Amino acid sequence: MSMLIVGTVATDDIVTPFASVAGVLGGSAVYAATAGSLYIPVQIVGVIGEDFPQKYKDFLRQKQFDLQGLEIQEGKTFHWAGKYHFDMNTRDTLATELNVLATFNPTLPVAYRETPFVFLANVDPTIQLRTLDQMKQPSLTVLDTMNYWIETQHDELTAVMRRSDLVMINDEELRQYTGEHSLLKAARQMLALGPRALIVKKGEHGAALVTKEGYYYAPGYPLEDVVDPTGAGDSFAGGFLGYIARQRKITARELHRALIHGSVIASFTVEDFSVDRLKSVTFPDVQKRYQEFASFTHFERLD
Amino acid sequence: MSMLIVGTVATDDIVTPFASVAGVLGGSAVYAATAGSLYIPVQIVGVIGEDFPQKYKDFLRQKQFDLQGLEIQEGKTFHWAGKYHFDMNTRDTLATELNVLATFNPTLPVAYRETPFVFLANVDPTIQLRTLDQMKQPSLTVLDTMNYWIETQHDELTAVMRRSDLVMINDEELRQYTGEHSLLKAARQMLALGPRALIVKKGEHGAALVTKEGYYYAPGYPLEDVVDPTGAGDSFAGGFLGYIARQRKITARELHRALIHGSVIASFTVEDFSVDRLKSVTFPDVQKRYQEFASFTHFERLD
Repeated sequence: MSMLIVGTVATDDIVTPFASVAGVLGGSAVYAATAGSLYIPVQIVGVIGEDFPQKYKDFLRQKQFDLQGLEIQEGKTFHWAGKYHFDMNTRDTLATELNVLATFNPTLPVAYRETPFVFLANVDPTIQLRTLDQMKQPSLTVLDTMNYWIETQHDELTAVMRRSDLVMINDEELRQYTGEHSLLKAARQMLALGPRALIVKKGEHGAALVTKEGYYYAPGYPLEDVVDPTGAGDSFAGGFLGYIARQRKITARELHRALIHGSVIASFTVEDFSVDRLKSVTFPDVQKRYQEFASFTHFERLD
Repeated sequence: MSMLIVGTVATDDIVTPFASVAGVLGGSAVYAATAGSLYIPVQIVGVIGEDFPQKYKDFLRQKQFDLQGLEIQEGKTFHWAGKYHFDMNTRDTLATELNVLATFNPTLPVAYRETPFVFLANVDPTIQLRTLDQMKQPSLTVLDTMNYWIETQHDELTAVMRRSDLVMINDEELRQYTGEHSLLKAARQMLALGPRALIVKKGEHGAALVTKEGYYYAPGYPLEDVVDPTGAGDSFAGGFLGYIARQRKITARELHRALIHGSVIASFTVEDFSVDRLKSVTFPDVQKRYQEFASFTHFERLD
């Protein structure tokens, strides 16, 4: 049993009000895989250029990710640069150099095609579609996206949504996509497209899981310091789907627990740049913080 | 057993992207009292002008609020006008006419001075101090404030904080007061001034209760439509303290349950303008929504 992740593998330059780094390992697939591998083996579908640093290749191997689906192509690796504002919730994109990603058209290794759990991490919707086209009816397909694709590839994105079981989107993007201010109404609109569940991400405030039947909430973990929010959503998704894949059950109960696991994982991610904190997290670390979440929210049970 | 509330009694003009009203009943004391009276009798300390509409006087009497502490003075009643942006979370103040509030210097009825539960609702800190000076050691004093007082009466506000058991403040105001970005660090700074607990309000995202020992979270109630956010914080506080006063216990368990009651009450308030929704809410309505909150957040217990 494993999970397939298609997304970006990148080098990032990141500026925050308190520190900055350049050329660090990043990308939606990298964050999601590092998180998901805490729960279950991961297969990566993505592309890197010839310039991808050896130390990062070594990291991906040392993590024992299945890299058969990671293509190396002539040219440069996808590069992103961003700068966070003082509130650490909003950021400006300083550079997006697609490089080898611009022409990436994945061909899945045969061994990947029957993988039951699929995460379509944040990447061009046409790449997400191309990946889905090669899969044999996964039991759970999770889609993540961003405002850029809502603006530039609305129809392709909608096509992927219709074929996904669960969509992850932040509150502003949900309002942007639907044109509806009420998050609950907006969520219902998106569920009407086909997905069985929606995860509405609210940054430091947490995340809500909305289904046709229910509503579940996970608050953000109260951190003393946020070093770098990059990858919080990608690792949230990796933890969420990793937990589900490990349980092999898709009940309301497990979806809600997965929501908490996602929040726990994201809370580790933002404690350092890149995957520097996340890569050293152990499963007992996750379980400890999971129990803390219970103490934050279970108001019947205190004392 | 009752609770004392000092704050504003006002007429409001409110503009939202979807509707507007003029001259409606408002004020921090009115919202808090309407909420608190669902749990326990309330005493109001405040001031109105000669122009205060008879229909609003009738409402306050019909609610059986103790109005011995509500002074009527020559001149006009405090008036506030505000306009909400499309997101319904941010607003511009269009007018603040203090009128009789400008010279208000409360003298508490003797019967009020031993009231054990005190809510210093949003009003000039000097009025809050003057009220506290006349009280005989309340068992619980809750303070609410706003950015305007942080800017214009920082020292007076700090003096009230030092004498309060619990402070309610929104996340941006907490950052503004402490100059600290991390909400957890900022909360600890404020707790160091003396309060035993802090409630950090996050608008539609909910509220967190922070003590030296613990952290508890109540998400916002997922509403189809928000009609008018005015008074959400005031009624949250009234529900919170009303619940505590009714229980007569100040344990972590009860504080956390009170946090949920505050969120429930606020969710009713914003469903209509003024106290129009809140005034018709029954205790069974509150209990029903309270149980829904459990289903949103108790991830161990689903199915």
